[in-house]
Amino acid sequence: MDLRSILLVTQYDGGEFAGWQRQPDARTVQGEMEVVLNRLCGGNPVSAVGAGRTDAGVHAHGQGVGVRMPPSWTPDRLRRAMNSLLPRDIWVAAAHEMTPDFHPRRSATARRYGYLVGTDEGAWSPFRRRYEWAVRHPLDATALAEEAASLMGEHTFRAFAVAHTAPVDDHHRCVIHHAAWVPRDGGWVFEVAANRFLHHMVRFLVGTMIDVAQGRRPRGTIARLLVAPDNRETTAPAPAHGLSLQQVTYPVTCYAQC
Amino acid sequence: MDLRSILLVTQYDGGEFAGWQRQPDARTVQGEMEVVLNRLCGGNPVSAVGAGRTDAGVHAHGQGVGVRMPPSWTPDRLRRAMNSLLPRDIWVAAAHEMTPDFHPRRSATARRYGYLVGTDEGAWSPFRRRYEWAVRHPLDATALAEEAASLMGEHTFRAFAVAHTAPVDDHHRCVIHHAAWVPRDGGWVFEVAANRFLHHMVRFLVGTMIDVAQGRRPRGTIARLLVAPDNRETTAPAPAHGLSLQQVTYPVTCYAQC
Repeated sequence: MDLRSILLVTQYDGGEFAGWQRQPDARTVQGEMEVVLNRLCGGNPVSAVGAGRTDAGVHAHGQGVGVRMPPSWTPDRLRRAMNSLLPRDIWVAAAHEMTPDFHPRRSATARRYGYLVGTDEGAWSPFRRRYEWAVRHPLDATALAEEAASLMGEHTFRAFAVAHTAPVDDHHRCVIHHAAWVPRDGGWVFEVAANRFLHHMVRFLVGTMIDVAQGRRPRGTIARLLVAPDNRETTAPAPAHGLSLQQVTYPVTCYAQC
Repeated sequence: MDLRSILLVTQYDGGEFAGWQRQPDARTVQGEMEVVLNRLCGGNPVSAVGAGRTDAGVHAHGQGVGVRMPPSWTPDRLRRAMNSLLPRDIWVAAAHEMTPDFHPRRSATARRYGYLVGTDEGAWSPFRRRYEWAVRHPLDATALAEEAASLMGEHTFRAFAVAHTAPVDDHHRCVIHHAAWVPRDGGWVFEVAANRFLHHMVRFLVGTMIDVAQGRRPRGTIARLLVAPDNRETTAPAPAHGLSLQQVTYPVTCYAQC
């Protein structure tokens, strides 16, 4: 029996998850989704494959989750059934039928993340602190713009990755399509899109740029670190809870004809 | 040694609390605040007295919390010390020195609550579902306005209270100063202010008004229930997580001269 290949565009509040990836003794997004999928398939195990492994505390507005289901499950029927059974902090916003060779991680051509930084007094409220990094000192807008601009294009990101988490022969190269600090009520959002991201990469970048924007490190630090061989001079990663995986992009050829 | 009477205007995300009131085996807001206060007082027990006992899941943007502290603790010093020690989901937004006879519950002249209802597709996202009641069917704006208007003034709220939670001789009378459904992006907020509220009162009112606004109960239901002897014909309470205690009002004479 051929299985249907379905993409579930998934949102979650990462606050009460030990990240995306299944773990034996921790509550994870993948674990919760697979419990529901197995139940819908009469106890048969079903894998939920994510486009990216978000860390503990990281949110998602559009994680790409691929599943293979018996053909009686249309995307819309699956979406409704899952939303009625999933816990309140996970939500399938959309579902699409994909081609048989679609793979949620390998087929992705781009990912977009957003990182919220709060700079006003209200940023410390429990309602915003769940989703933003509240910082005490004002940020230099020109410094933010300069550091973000230096990210554009293809670079080696050894300085912005957790050491020894990529394969030994990994080139650590990423192509940044978009990087900008956008002002908003009460603070900023750092928007960044790339073909791929290394482990902790956005959080390393934000931590370092905030140090520059608060005058603790000189301007041009990002450009200098982009040629560094490791992360020894990089600022510690910004907190996980400010980060959200906004969108995963797939080629139109991955979507099945309707 | 005379103790200082201090009002802590406190915010919390109720999602991970078993309500305001201290309980031996559950995480509560009062319990967490008292742990921090005791630590600041070198292990001496300090009570945190709330203006109202919010239920499990109910949020607060302005709970009134009264404490008595040794005179070395100015309000501002106490606020800073508490915010550095409290968990991320509690935040003291302001602190004021009060007169010696101030009592956070008995001195309050008004409380204001807000209840969020979401009516668009996005209301189901995990980021909004934590703070809003997402409802499936559209709401009749005229019905909402009529039902809310009938609440204004002094009434007996036996139909909108949990049975047997008030003292036997309680008159169940409350004076409603303000009651209105205000449209907002993606839904509505029900705003209500009164001299006092009974247990589950706002949630009973919202549950019943949503039934009217979705055509399941006739218009005028609120007015009819305001003369009912008990809650047997009242709609079940709306979910706790849509509710927030917005503000507690005290007479200016309760605030100590600066």
